[in-house]
Amino acid sequence: VDFGDGYSICDQCLKGALDKIQNPPIGDFFQDFAEWVNQDRSFATGGARHSKRIALKVIKKIHPERNIVLVDANAHYSTFLAVEENQLVPMEVPHDGKPTYRVNLEAYGEKIDEVVDKTGVLPVAALLTHVDYQYGNLNDPAVVGNICKQKDVPFILNGAYSIGILPPPPRSCEIDFITASGHKSMAASGPVGMLAFKEEYAEGVFERSKVVGDITGRSWPGKYCNFLGCPSVYGAPLATLMASFPAVVERCLPKNAEEEVKKVNFLVGEILKIEDFAVQGVLPKEHPLMKVMTPGFAKVSETHPRKGFFVREEFKKRGIIGMAPGISKSMKINTFGLTWEQVRLVAWAFKDIAAQNGLNVTE
Amino acid sequence: VDFGDGYSICDQCLKGALDKIQNPPIGDFFQDFAEWVNQDRSFATGGARHSKRIALKVIKKIHPERNIVLVDANAHYSTFLAVEENQLVPMEVPHDGKPTYRVNLEAYGEKIDEVVDKTGVLPVAALLTHVDYQYGNLNDPAVVGNICKQKDVPFILNGAYSIGILPPPPRSCEIDFITASGHKSMAASGPVGMLAFKEEYAEGVFERSKVVGDITGRSWPGKYCNFLGCPSVYGAPLATLMASFPAVVERCLPKNAEEEVKKVNFLVGEILKIEDFAVQGVLPKEHPLMKVMTPGFAKVSETHPRKGFFVREEFKKRGIIGMAPGISKSMKINTFGLTWEQVRLVAWAFKDIAAQNGLNVTE
Repeated sequence: VDFGDGYSICDQCLKGALDKIQNPPIGDFFQDFAEWVNQDRSFATGGARHSKRIALKVIKKIHPERNIVLVDANAHYSTFLAVEENQLVPMEVPHDGKPTYRVNLEAYGEKIDEVVDKTGVLPVAALLTHVDYQYGNLNDPAVVGNICKQKDVPFILNGAYSIGILPPPPRSCEIDFITASGHKSMAASGPVGMLAFKEEYAEGVFERSKVVGDITGRSWPGKYCNFLGCPSVYGAPLATLMASFPAVVERCLPKNAEEEVKKVNFLVGEILKIEDFAVQGVLPKEHPLMKVMTPGFAKVSETHPRKGFFVREEFKKRGIIGMAPGISKSMKINTFGLTWEQVRLVAWAFKDIAAQNGLNVTE
Repeated sequence: VDFGDGYSICDQCLKGALDKIQNPPIGDFFQDFAEWVNQDRSFATGGARHSKRIALKVIKKIHPERNIVLVDANAHYSTFLAVEENQLVPMEVPHDGKPTYRVNLEAYGEKIDEVVDKTGVLPVAALLTHVDYQYGNLNDPAVVGNICKQKDVPFILNGAYSIGILPPPPRSCEIDFITASGHKSMAASGPVGMLAFKEEYAEGVFERSKVVGDITGRSWPGKYCNFLGCPSVYGAPLATLMASFPAVVERCLPKNAEEEVKKVNFLVGEILKIEDFAVQGVLPKEHPLMKVMTPGFAKVSETHPRKGFFVREEFKKRGIIGMAPGISKSMKINTFGLTWEQVRLVAWAFKDIAAQNGLNVTE
């Protein structure tokens, strides 16, 4: 609350750099965050997409002759835009399609070879979405990390849906950059993200300004180019990220994360009792986000006086809100942070709405 | 408060674009803001520095053969970093030095000619700091705007210290882009800024994504490249900027802005009664930010048991806080928003501290 006005953090700045501010202890937080995700350094950004943009920019500067970025076929659009913004070209690593959409992690190796065959140089980087936004599939970064290390391709892990939800990946995964989202998965008021990385990239990430005023001779050799000075982000977004951090670390402990996964799998089991309902993505779930296909609801909507809106309204009657209006074919549900009682309520609501609308529900 | 959690704005997004969200009415706000600053369009950014970076990027794309940006010699470091980030070169337009530091606005014309002579092409843009961060000097954008229009150079006005404090510049100033700061001058919780611009630049600012997934065929032709999708900024920063907007418009009405200028000039008059004290920058003040030279305090600090810290401590005793610890040679003061009673208290404190420490104060 002390830093909610958005500028109080800058009032505490004596050295012109965000990470040198001691109240609140921003530099310490960056170090703590880096250690928590098993990296060497970290810094705050305007969101995971900005972290991806900066990571790619730093790597591109090291390897200017390379221009292809490998991305998994489940990557979020912001990954593609970060690639595009750096004037690079994405090449997708395929998933196995409907219904599991499982990314073929081993294919990163073949794709790297393909890029070398076609262009004569390695890809500039390989990016893997740790957990995707659509199916909530969890990918093992160690597989891609070790392929990349062996083939000498920098490896970026996008943890927008995982860092803050699941235990951070161990050091042995050979990750060069981890991108994370404060507002998506770390209980922070957005927009804020984190970029964590290995020490060898620190010089590039923290590249200092070299510009000089030709008349005044002014220069700012302490300012970070990639953050347009120091203040990539501050105020409420950064203060809430820091305030939430201890609770976020706690909830990612294996015992707590495992409990969350039990909840989602319980709900999956209940939903699959409804006629024709399906859960896309890899099962059993390893992350609390799931995509549910609800063809029975879509069929009901064809003749229902409220059309597709009945779905949202029926859930709302049963105390469950947040669904997009009018959607009846599929929905994304995240059980993260719900109590067991709440998870059971959601399961009951699905089955009750289905049964009341003439769909078969097995017990 | 409804949008303080940072993601509620995105929960209201149905069309995948920030400016299409109707609750809160973000698109309406962008239009209102543009009209208020006498431009055609506007969008939110992560701060004025990001607005400058994007404006330069858009113009550079139109004129890729140009690489020099004219900037006034009082420009903030973030202006130089925005130039540097676009791989452009700044060329300063001089001020007249100590004590007024008045920018020679007419020199923009000569500098443009000089660039053409030296490089064979026009500067990519001319940037003027409307009110600088150091002396609070107000520059008339009409002078530079008309020179730029005549010579066909795009003109950027950095209003980080003016938009939200003074009446916005009229349309006749021929400004192509205005950059503004939410947390510096528009009573918003940072980081947030605005970029307002003429319609002819809308296509460039709102350039859409062209990237395509080679396997999945996914593409996002509705997403804005320069904002890495839609969400340049949202949550508390944007919600507080919108919440403050009516009050900000009100306080910038000429009668209110003029009253603020009376207050700062009253304080200047009082401070100048102290032996050797001076106010740098152009006088009388046209903006409530001033730089005060306090050599008498510096002299006292040489023998004072609390050294330079006595300045901050003496002001604090008199109910005035916010000074940097240990500084005794000069200080920046902004009287904006103080009541007349508070301004008189500050004036009295200056004179009282000076007199009690043996400095001459005339009446």
